[in-house]
Formats: sequence, C-alpha cells, structure tokens
Amino acid sequence: MTAATADWGHYLATMRKTAPLVQNITNYVAMNVMANVMLAAGASPAMVHAIEEAAEFTAFSQALTINIGTLSAPWVASMLASAAKAHAAGVPWVLDPVAAGATTFRRDTAAALLALKPTVIRGNASEILALAGTAARGKGVDAADGVDAAEAGARDLAQVSGAVVAVTGPVDFITDGIRGWRVANGHPTMPLITALGCSLTGIVGAFIAGQPTAEATVAALAYYGVAGEIAAETAKGPGSFQVAFLDALHSLTSAQLAARARVSLA
Amino acid sequence: MTAATADWGHYLATMRKTAPLVQNITNYVAMNVMANVMLAAGASPAMVHAIEEAAEFTAFSQALTINIGTLSAPWVASMLASAAKAHAAGVPWVLDPVAAGATTFRRDTAAALLALKPTVIRGNASEILALAGTAARGKGVDAADGVDAAEAGARDLAQVSGAVVAVTGPVDFITDGIRGWRVANGHPTMPLITALGCSLTGIVGAFIAGQPTAEATVAALAYYGVAGEIAAETAKGPGSFQVAFLDALHSLTSAQLAARARVSLA
Amino acid sequence: MTAATADWGHYLATMRKTAPLVQNITNYVAMNVMANVMLAAGASPAMVHAIEEAAEFTAFSQALTINIGTLSAPWVASMLASAAKAHAAGVPWVLDPVAAGATTFRRDTAAALLALKPTVIRGNASEILALAGTAARGKGVDAADGVDAAEAGARDLAQVSGAVVAVTGPVDFITDGIRGWRVANGHPTMPLITALGCSLTGIVGAFIAGQPTAEATVAALAYYGVAGEIAAETAKGPGSFQVAFLDALHSLTSAQLAARARVSLA
Repeated sequence: MTAATADWGHYLATMRKTAPLVQNITNYVAMNVMANVMLAAGASPAMVHAIEEAAEFTAFSQALTINIGTLSAPWVASMLASAAKAHAAGVPWVLDPVAAGATTFRRDTAAALLALKPTVIRGNASEILALAGTAARGKGVDAADGVDAAEAGARDLAQVSGAVVAVTGPVDFITDGIRGWRVANGHPTMPLITALGCSLTGIVGAFIAGQPTAEATVAALAYYGVAGEIAAETAKGPGSFQVAFLDALHSLTSAQLAARARVSLA
Repeated sequence: MTAATADWGHYLATMRKTAPLVQNITNYVAMNVMANVMLAAGASPAMVHAIEEAAEFTAFSQALTINIGTLSAPWVASMLASAAKAHAAGVPWVLDPVAAGATTFRRDTAAALLALKPTVIRGNASEILALAGTAARGKGVDAADGVDAAEAGARDLAQVSGAVVAVTGPVDFITDGIRGWRVANGHPTMPLITALGCSLTGIVGAFIAGQPTAEATVAALAYYGVAGEIAAETAKGPGSFQVAFLDALHSLTSAQLAARARVSLA
Repeated sequence: MTAATADWGHYLATMRKTAPLVQNITNYVAMNVMANVMLAAGASPAMVHAIEEAAEFTAFSQALTINIGTLSAPWVASMLASAAKAHAAGVPWVLDPVAAGATTFRRDTAAALLALKPTVIRGNASEILALAGTAARGKGVDAADGVDAAEAGARDLAQVSGAVVAVTGPVDFITDGIRGWRVANGHPTMPLITALGCSLTGIVGAFIAGQPTAEATVAALAYYGVAGEIAAETAKGPGSFQVAFLDALHSLTSAQLAARARVSLA
C-alpha cells in the first residue's frame, strides 16, 4: 500500500475510539479555540499549566502539547517540568515553537524545550528554520518562508532532534529524518483565523497517542485540511469559516478522510 | 403551586431587569465565552482577578463567581481574597470546582474556598463527589460519574457547607440539603463546546443576585438548558451550536422559559 | 473636500496594503477575538506581553496597543516598558483605559501609561472622563456616560496629553484637541458582544501605522461601524452577529466604506 492509497481514516477512527486525554500548555489566544477544535474532533483536552500541578497532570495524560505563543517566565518553568516528565514517562509530546526566532526569550525557550526530546515538532516554515539554525527571516508568527524551502531544514532538524517534524503551510511537509510526506489539503482562509495552527498542534497530540508517530501526524494534518476544505464550501468569510470548520471537524468521517486525503511521498 | 408549574420565567425577568454586575474569577479558556454568555442573557459581567483590585471590586459587585479551571498561585490568592470579601459583605458567590479531584493543588484550593462559605457550588458529578469527600473516579474535567450517583453526595455537601449544590449533567440536580429539584432540559451537544459549564456558573451568579438562592439556581439551569434545546433545532455541529446558543440565550423570553422548563421535585 | 465627503476608504486601503505588524498587550477576554478582528481586517496582530520580550518586540512593530482590561502587576511592568520603547522609538501607540475609574490599581496604571504619551486614547465616555479627571460615575466596563457629555472632557484630555482622543458609543467622537469629528456608524448589538471595543483599539492601531493619526482614527471607527451595520442585516442575535461581523470586516471594500461612512465635523 502506498502513501497515496493508505487508509489515513484509520488513524482518525482510532483517535476517536481512544478519546485521548491531552494536556495542553498553550497560549492565551489559542486556549478556547484549541479546546473546541479538540472536542469537535473527539479528543479530551485539558489546559493545565500551573507549576504546582503541570507535571503531576502530565503523568496521567495520553499526550502533551506545548506552545510558546504567549510565554512568560512562570509558564516556561511549567513547560520544562511537563516536558521533562513526558520524556521520562514515555508520554508523547508535541512542541509548537511559535515565532521561535522573533526574540531572544523565544530562542532560548525553544532550545531548552528541544533538549527535552519532543516527539513531534509542528511549526510554519520560518519557525522550523529558526529551530534548525538556518537563517530565518520571519520575526512574527506568520510563515515568511515557503514550505519547500524548509524541507531541507526539517530533515536536518528531525535527524538532530529525533523528532518527527511537520512544516505546515499551503502544502504541509512531514518527515522523520528519512521518510517524507506532503499533504496538499487545506484552504487559504485558514491563516485568516487566529490559533488554527496552534489548535492543529492539539490535534496532532491526540492522533499520536498510542499510534505510529509519523503516520499519525500525516493523518492529523490531512484531517485538518479536509475539514478546512469542507468549511470553505459554505463559508462567506473568516467568521463563518470558523463555525463551519468546527462543524466539519465533528462530522467528517474516517471514510471521507480516506477518500479526500491528498498525501504523497516526498 | 408545585415545582412543575412554578413560574421559572419570573427569575429570568428579574435578572434581566436588574442586569447585575457579576465579578468572575474564571479560567483563561472560559473568559470570552462566559462574558458573551452573560451579556447575551442580560447580565453585566466583569473579569477582575488581580490581587491589587479583586476584593475591592467584589465589594460593589452584586455577585461573585470563582472557577478553578486554570488556577495558579497568584490567582488562588485573589480567589481567597474575593471570596472572603464576599462572605463578609454579604455578596452571594458561586464556586465552580473544576477538576477538583485531579491534583493535590486543586484539592487544596477547593478546600480553602469551601471554608469561605460559597452560596452555591456548581459542578459535574465527579467534582461534587470530590468535594463531598466521596471517592471520585474523575481525573479530568468531564463528568465521569452520573448525576444520580452524585445526589447523595450533593445533599451531604449542602448540609455540611451550607451552600446550595447544583450537579449538572444530562439531568441536573439542585439541593439545599433538604429540598431537591431535577432539571431535565439541555442537549447532548453542549458538552462538546468548551466552557459552557463554566459559563453556566456565571449565569447562576447573575440569577442569585437578590433572588432566593435555590429557586434562582433551578431557574438558571432550566434557562440554560432550554436555550440549548433551541440551539439544537438549527445547529449542524458544535460550531453552529455555539452561535445559535448565544442567539437563543438572548431571544428566549420569560414566557418561553416558563413553558419549556422541565423541573421536578427530587 | 469636507469631512462629510472625504475618502475614508483610502485609509482602509492603505492599511490593507501595509498589513502592519501591531503588537497588542491586551486582556485575556479580548485576545482571541481581537486577533481575529485584526486578521479579518487585513492587519498582522501579535500578542506579546512578557517582560522578557515585550519592549524588544515593540521596537520592530509598526504600532502598539495597550489595554488594561485584566491587568496584573507583571503585565503593568510590560505595558510600561513597551509604551516607553514606543515613545522613544516613534512607534505610534494606542491606550485603551478599560474601567479606568473603577479601582485604585486602574487609576494608578492609567496615569502611569498616560505619562508615556499615547498617540491615541480610545475608550467609552466613562473611561475618557475618568482619565480627564472629570467626575465619572462608571465603575464597570460599560459606558455609563453619554458620548455628548464626554466631548468636553475629551478635548481637555487631548490638549493636556497631546493624544488624539476617541470616545466610542452610539455616536463616536474624535478630537485632537482642536478639530473634532463625529462618526454615526454602528449598531446597538455591538455592546452585547464582549471585547468588540477592545478589538477596535487594535483596528485603530493598524490604521494609524504610517497614516495621519486623527484622520486614520476616524476612518477606523467608521470602518468598524459600517461592518457592524452590515452584520446586523443578517444576524439573529449576538452569536450570529459576531460571525457576520468578522465576515463583514473581511469583505468590506474601501469603496463601500467611502459610501457608507457617516462622518461629520464637530
């Protein structure tokens, strides 16, 4: 079975059956929409970040996601504690290095988290290039570099870090350092809605819980993109798109995902 | 007049006429939707949590709600200061013990708040059982225990704490330790939208301002459930449900609430 | 060309062409909707508030907005650092003095920010009057004073502070201390949706980046009000209004704005 004909819907079905408890340490902008996205998909999100309980909660979570979007010193301490616990306890965890190259604080935090061995790193091209140590132009949170240009950086980062690296953009690229996949699903309205990228990180966390990391990540990205395509069929702008997107995440079946996923080997 | 035929719409009308200023110390996930829910209903929400001003603000609020969803040490200090001020000044206040049994930090915080005499405690079955000291299975924020199983725990908790206790679920249960009510309104899509439970706590706070606590709490839960039923008539999934729910909270009249409330004595 | 026939659409077109990077230090309630509002309009919002990076980020932003809605001591430090950097570096910045008169903490914070020379101050009548030192009745976040009553206070505040002052309400009033404009666009449903006022502050920040401050502020308020009028044409309540409003912010053209803006000299 080739990637083009693989049953990507299987990973969605398994995720929904498991309904994994996923702890998310994310930014203030994303929290609400991320929780709604994950609930609509069928996962069990929990936003737990206080240093007094973050690592304790990680120990009984099925996955952890960490997003540095609106970081501050107390939160960084919790991120490091939870990531260390996840690494020690074998809980898979996803790093979302928002605007990793924008300020010294972000570069340092991203580097410290990278040392704690994320299972998956998901970012846009600028962020992945910043992590890969490649000269990145992006100083904001938007993708200033194309996904194509980031593929080499992603392979390098995957090999050095041991993580599966997912670069999201008009066409997504996923690699474990050796193998590579491209996912051509999605819609241009998606970047007009804040925190949809951050929320995708939660979906990746839910998919990789108990499933093969690289393949589950590919399936998560295809699922998200197909839901975006369905939302675009009725949306009249970014407001109605967000509403239709949540509806589509909920109603999209495994069979539909298998039929509409546009995945190719890279 | 029995509970089944009581005019529950009266409490909604009074709340809207008063438009009570309700201070909410709640979690990051809920803040936006809770404010929108309360505005749509006709209340005046204010999110004020800094230790420098929280208790000062409580003194001139008509009600206070405290939710421990994304708690951290600085916020706990504000919660305790505002709850103490509310108790001293006779401002009714509602405790929402999110995931009270999940971590040590939550158990300790919930116990400290309980000692400050909440007027109402609103939670799901797991949370109420955790507060009641009964063995609770729930470690996340979802209801792992049925409302039925929690009724005994709720009565115990009400008697020990002096609070009206509301256990929300498919059928809600409300008790002041002696009397009991069940509210059978609502819709299965509601738990798929994050923070609708948290936001209900704000609605309870608005209803109990200047009204009989137990009856106003029953009316608040019926109002919320009927709005959910109306939303479900047109929603296609969790995204459109949330939109229709806010519209319904705003358009639902007292007469409609009186006609559609399914309240029974328990 | 008089104000009534000025091409207010021009300022929208320029903002969209520039897509200015606007740093926002705002409250937890507003963050998500503010980012969505700004993205729908065509700006590039970034929510950056940690003391470790806030001022560093300000230096390369095209505008800065500061909102004291859910302030706390650590955030006040970041607000002051970013405002000082903006003032020193010539980055225009907007102050949104939410509930400025409600508590001592707010009064002190607003005064400290005012000393750092905001380019624009946008608030409701109570807030502007509180800043102007005029007796304000408002203790919450809603406008308890009419815009008319606040016009004199706004002119005083503009002259003392050197800022353009925008008082928003059913009819908005904008002044640089000498000239004055009224904007009669908008819809009564807008105050029923939380953080729409806070989000407008971000729109003002985006419009004044590289454009004449007073005129760009007038255009921003007219743009926002016209989008509200368009949203009201299809909305059935505050939920569907918010969705239609985001759609309208995105689809509204410069020509439509020029045709529908109701601006008069005051």
